[in-house]
Amino acid sequence: MIKKSFENLKLKQPLIHNITNYVTVNDCANVLLACGASPIMADDISEVAKITSICSGLNLNIGTLNKNTIESMIAAGKTANALSHPILLDPVGAGASTLRTQTAQQLFNELNIAVIRGNISEIKTLALGYGNTTGVDANVAEIVTDETIGIVVDLAKRLSASSGSIVAITGVIDIVANGEKACVIRNGHKMMSKVTGTGCMLSAMTTAYICANPKDMFWATVASTCAMGLCGELAFERLTPRDGNITYRNYIIDEIYNLTAEKLELGAKYEVY
Amino acid sequence: MIKKSFENLKLKQPLIHNITNYVTVNDCANVLLACGASPIMADDISEVAKITSICSGLNLNIGTLNKNTIESMIAAGKTANALSHPILLDPVGAGASTLRTQTAQQLFNELNIAVIRGNISEIKTLALGYGNTTGVDANVAEIVTDETIGIVVDLAKRLSASSGSIVAITGVIDIVANGEKACVIRNGHKMMSKVTGTGCMLSAMTTAYICANPKDMFWATVASTCAMGLCGELAFERLTPRDGNITYRNYIIDEIYNLTAEKLELGAKYEVY
Amino acid sequence: MIKKSFENLKLKQPLIHNITNYVTVNDCANVLLACGASPIMADDISEVAKITSICSGLNLNIGTLNKNTIESMIAAGKTANALSHPILLDPVGAGASTLRTQTAQQLFNELNIAVIRGNISEIKTLALGYGNTTGVDANVAEIVTDETIGIVVDLAKRLSASSGSIVAITGVIDIVANGEKACVIRNGHKMMSKVTGTGCMLSAMTTAYICANPKDMFWATVASTCAMGLCGELAFERLTPRDGNITYRNYIIDEIYNLTAEKLELGAKYEVY
Repeated sequence: MIKKSFENLKLKQPLIHNITNYVTVNDCANVLLACGASPIMADDISEVAKITSICSGLNLNIGTLNKNTIESMIAAGKTANALSHPILLDPVGAGASTLRTQTAQQLFNELNIAVIRGNISEIKTLALGYGNTTGVDANVAEIVTDETIGIVVDLAKRLSASSGSIVAITGVIDIVANGEKACVIRNGHKMMSKVTGTGCMLSAMTTAYICANPKDMFWATVASTCAMGLCGELAFERLTPRDGNITYRNYIIDEIYNLTAEKLELGAKYEVY
Repeated sequence: MIKKSFENLKLKQPLIHNITNYVTVNDCANVLLACGASPIMADDISEVAKITSICSGLNLNIGTLNKNTIESMIAAGKTANALSHPILLDPVGAGASTLRTQTAQQLFNELNIAVIRGNISEIKTLALGYGNTTGVDANVAEIVTDETIGIVVDLAKRLSASSGSIVAITGVIDIVANGEKACVIRNGHKMMSKVTGTGCMLSAMTTAYICANPKDMFWATVASTCAMGLCGELAFERLTPRDGNITYRNYIIDEIYNLTAEKLELGAKYEVY
Repeated sequence: MIKKSFENLKLKQPLIHNITNYVTVNDCANVLLACGASPIMADDISEVAKITSICSGLNLNIGTLNKNTIESMIAAGKTANALSHPILLDPVGAGASTLRTQTAQQLFNELNIAVIRGNISEIKTLALGYGNTTGVDANVAEIVTDETIGIVVDLAKRLSASSGSIVAITGVIDIVANGEKACVIRNGHKMMSKVTGTGCMLSAMTTAYICANPKDMFWATVASTCAMGLCGELAFERLTPRDGNITYRNYIIDEIYNLTAEKLELGAKYEVY
């Protein structure tokens, strides 16, 4: 199913509308092109409905939210819902400020979100209504380990069951859940945390995967998450001693560009829980 | 004339005021530095007139326009016109939303635009008043081919004659026209469409070329368009099997940095129509 | 003290709140990660106080200021001051427009600024109340040379004495001063001026250094300035004939990622004045 998800993406080349932060937006655009999709960024309230209508799906990322873009996210989201275009929500920093927590909750409650993707602190904030987020990265005390996987899988399944959204919690270990099942994914490399925006890039790419696979968004999300992690592994292998986090960022996107269905099928490391 | 345009740019090192989108802005700044110019980005209404006045020219790009930046573009543009500084307009996504179409038309009508550069869908939208733009990339059905070159050259010449602006339509085949003549340019590589912002970068660089060549902006635009395409070709040659679209982006800008008058003269592929 | 500053940064890994421009923001985020710190960008007035409160320090950069972000800078700055978090001010383009000059003065006067870092034209504007800034780069006529070092060191010391802020004037020759002493730093490479945002990156990194070294911010600023210049030198050595300014940018950040206390101690070139 991983392979099929990948092939559908290459075949359908969806156009993705992104309302996202200005920190990692260029990388997100290039990742969408690398994986076979196309990006458009538009956030003015007077055009977001129209732009969303010509796209296949919507990627909402609150990384540098402000009162104008929040309003635009709601408006674009309502249009996407009316047109049955899938929406992915990336609640960057939910728990770190009241604005972020409330905006994430508002988007999650008022819109029909196909996939929510965040780190454990952000997702806990949404699941429990409050959080221990210490920035835009996960709180170290909350990082998912082999000991806590069971608890986190349960949390993800319950949040998915109550919301109807696929829940993707990403970090050293990734978990993708719907109300019935979950996948635990062990692709990736710890150096990815030294590159700004790997989460944002995954959110953008996952939006493309689900748009290309509307009938099986769960496996599309698993495929995208495996793909990102696998590209992180492959890119790491390419590094030479003087390379650092920017070259690593570049190589990760290059690997996404060069990924094939075969490489993904072979390299994906996931178990169904 | 290509060579002279290039040499004038290296000599004059113009400072360019950019009101541009937040997706590709960093690449535009680095491209301006790479080609020998200097960038300044400023979009607040209370400073754009002053900033434009200390620059040699103005690059207006509506890629992530909003109501504040539209107002700033008009204000900066009026000042640039009053000071006889050349303005380049990049109507990103004109035709994709009413906001983009109307804003592009407003800027094109209210300001004296030296060069308008866009893809075929964007330029047709401006020429005909409506468009088939399907995002920020050209509508596939409209892409310029050997069969349609004649029609597109006519469209470009007519739009130039009626507006007084040099018209640059870029894509697989590029066309630069004024009211009297046109150049068809066959530099470039198809992989450039997998890098976000090659159009934006070309617009920024072309602004620098025309500022350095005020007496022959037609050939300056041809020179800049050839230079971008040629650097796309040279950068492609450098790619190794694991390189993807980000390394390609990096190499394109590196080639712009290392371009010489001789390489440009030798590599430019254009015919006068 | 250079070495100790570096080691404290690696140990403390401070979270830095950045209200910065959208041109170089991605590079600033990756530089913060490269040097061992973590970035968060947030500029909406309704969350900046909260975000600043969970961080160790605040980096204010007026590169693409607007009326909303100015208000947010003041609000975040007052909270940072109340919590005794160090603030770094980067007055990008002060002197180039009234908005930039007045905003830089307002931030400098209303807030307790730990370090102000700019080019000579920007700092002169703040010191004298008016400036000859010709863009976001220093006015060529004002560039610090061996002949003018004495005068500039005096200017920096006086501005530091009157304001209580550490003053860092960077360019071909860098000067860091407090009211009592100054360091003249001769690290760096002239090609750094061909990369957009090396000043912004240095400001972000210096904020991290001073947060990790609250008891000796003068030497922390010297250490950060030496580190940036040294990484510029090391990155330049890596360049091959076809590399240009983007690969140079990438290598500079890679060198920051791979910098060690030993390399910094050995490579730092500074004299106390």
